[in-house]
Amino acid sequence: MNKETLIQVQKRIQPYIHRTPVLTSELINTISGTQVYFKCENFQKMGAFKMRGATNAILNLSQEQREKGVVTHSSGNFAQALSLAAKKLGVKAYIVMPKNAPQVKKNAVKTYNGEIIECESTPIAREAMAKKVLQEKKATFIHPSNDDQVIFGNSTAAIELLEDYPDLDYIIAPVGGGGLIAGTALAAKYFSKSCKVVGGEPKNVDDAFRSKQSGKIETTNEGTTIADGLRTFLGDRNFPIIQKEVECIITVEEEEIIEAMKLIWERMKIIVEPSSAVAFAAVLKDKEKFKNKKVGVIISGGNVDVTNLPF
Amino acid sequence: MNKETLIQVQKRIQPYIHRTPVLTSELINTISGTQVYFKCENFQKMGAFKMRGATNAILNLSQEQREKGVVTHSSGNFAQALSLAAKKLGVKAYIVMPKNAPQVKKNAVKTYNGEIIECESTPIAREAMAKKVLQEKKATFIHPSNDDQVIFGNSTAAIELLEDYPDLDYIIAPVGGGGLIAGTALAAKYFSKSCKVVGGEPKNVDDAFRSKQSGKIETTNEGTTIADGLRTFLGDRNFPIIQKEVECIITVEEEEIIEAMKLIWERMKIIVEPSSAVAFAAVLKDKEKFKNKKVGVIISGGNVDVTNLPF
Repeated sequence: MNKETLIQVQKRIQPYIHRTPVLTSELINTISGTQVYFKCENFQKMGAFKMRGATNAILNLSQEQREKGVVTHSSGNFAQALSLAAKKLGVKAYIVMPKNAPQVKKNAVKTYNGEIIECESTPIAREAMAKKVLQEKKATFIHPSNDDQVIFGNSTAAIELLEDYPDLDYIIAPVGGGGLIAGTALAAKYFSKSCKVVGGEPKNVDDAFRSKQSGKIETTNEGTTIADGLRTFLGDRNFPIIQKEVECIITVEEEEIIEAMKLIWERMKIIVEPSSAVAFAAVLKDKEKFKNKKVGVIISGGNVDVTNLPF
Repeated sequence: MNKETLIQVQKRIQPYIHRTPVLTSELINTISGTQVYFKCENFQKMGAFKMRGATNAILNLSQEQREKGVVTHSSGNFAQALSLAAKKLGVKAYIVMPKNAPQVKKNAVKTYNGEIIECESTPIAREAMAKKVLQEKKATFIHPSNDDQVIFGNSTAAIELLEDYPDLDYIIAPVGGGGLIAGTALAAKYFSKSCKVVGGEPKNVDDAFRSKQSGKIETTNEGTTIADGLRTFLGDRNFPIIQKEVECIITVEEEEIIEAMKLIWERMKIIVEPSSAVAFAAVLKDKEKFKNKKVGVIISGGNVDVTNLPF
C-alpha cells in the first residue's frame, strides 16, 4: 500500500460517513498546557470511528462476496458499525455475540438490521460460531481491528484531521485491538511532514505497551478497565505498523481515565466514551512531552450508558 | 432599531464570541418526523448563549461607564457571562448573588474574575443590594434578560443559524426571562423571509404562556422545574417583542423535558442543560405542527452538573 491507496479509500467511503468536526477549547488548552484538537468521531454515524473501517471493508468486496454477506464477532461498536455499513450498502451482516451480551447492545445491532447469532461467552465458542457462519452462509469474515481494509478505513479520521490542521506535532489515539492506532500512524506517515503518533492505553490492560517493548504480540491481560472497548489484543496486520510507526504508548490509570472523561464532558460539552478519554488522559499524563505542542486527539466514540456513569 | 442595528451588533461582538456549529442527526429527524437543526450554544464561551448579550451590553457602554464597571444579579449563566465578557473587555463586574447559592456557581464566577457580592436570598434583598452597588461604585446595571442590548446580542445566535440555513420554517427557543426568545424573534423578522418563532416553556412555570394569552406580564409561578434557568419573568423590554413577533408558546411537562434531554445526550452526543431540552421537547410535543418542516432549535447552554443527572 502507499499514499494513493489511502486517497482512494478516503474517496470511496466519503459518501457513507460524516466528515466529523474538530473542536477546541481554551480552558482545555490552559489545563493541559498544550493546543489540543479533538477529532470528534463521537459524532460519526452510529457514534464511533468504526463506521469508517467497516464501510471500507465492505466496499472492498466483490459483488459476489457482497451477495453472500459479512460476518464478525463483536458486542461493541464494530458490531453496530458493520451492521449499519452493510445496511447502507445492501449487504447482509451476521453478528456473532455472546448470549449474555447486554440487551442494549443487541438492540443497537438490530436497529441497524444486523442479524445476531448467539454463542457461549468464550473466545473459543465465538471463533467456532463465526467459522460455522462462514461455512454455512459463505459470508466473508471481517475482523474488527486486524484487517487491512479496516485499518485503511480507520486512517481517514486522521487524514481529515491533518487536512484541517496540517501542522500538528502529535496525534494521540486510544489503543485496543490496534486498528485505529495503526490507521492513524499510516495517515501521519503519508499525510504529514513530521507528525508523530502516540497511543494511549489503560494501565490495567497494557498488552500493546508490553508488545511494543517485547517486540511480539502479548496476549495476556489480567485486569479490567472502565474503557472496556480496549480489552482486546493486537494482531499480525496491525502490530507491524504499530511497532514501526507509533512513537510510544502511554499508559494511564483508571482514575486518570475517569478524570479526563469528566473534564471533556464538562469543558467541551460533548459525550465521549471512556475509551476516548484514554487518549486525552495520555496528554495529561505527560504534560512535559506535549508542552506548547499542537496535539490532535482522536475522540474514538460516544456510545456510553448515560444512566450509569463513573462520576 | 432596525436590521442595520443587528448587523452592527453582530459585527462588534464577533471577536469575543464563538460562531457555534449547527448539528443535525438522521435519527433525531426520524424520531421527530421533522428536519431539526440544533444551534449549539452549549459550545459558546462559558457554555451558554448569554455570552452574546452580555458582551454586547458592555460594548455599548461609554468609556467612562466601562471604567466604573457593571453589576447584575444572577446566580446562573448570566453571572458567568457578564463576568467573562467584562474580563475580556477589561471591565470590572460585580455579581449580586444570594449567600446560599451553590459553591460551584460562585466558583464559576470567580474563575472569570467576577466579584461576588452576597445578599439574602429574597428578590427584595437582591434588588436592594444591586442598587447599593450601583450607588457606591457608580457601576452600570445590566439586566440578564430585560435589556435592549442584551436582547440584540442574543439575536445573533439565530442570525448565524439563518445565515447557515436561510430556509428554516421555524426556530424554537426556550423561554425564561424572555431575552433569548425576543432576540430570536427579531432575528427571524429581519433575517428571514417567513421563518416563524415558537417558544418552549416548562408547564410548571408557564408565566410567558399566560402572559401571551392575557396580554400583560404575569408574575406568578407556583411550581418548580428541572429547567431552573427558566424560572424568571418577562419584562417590559422583551414582552412587547414576544407578544408581537412570537407565533406561540408550547408548554411541556417535566418528564417530557427529561426525555428530550436524554434523547439529545444519547443521539447527538452533546451535553445540554434541561433548559435547552425544553425547546426540543416542544418540537416532540406538537409533531403534527412541525411535520416535515425545517426547524431550528436553539440549544441555549450546556452548564449542567454531570454528577447529578435526572436520568
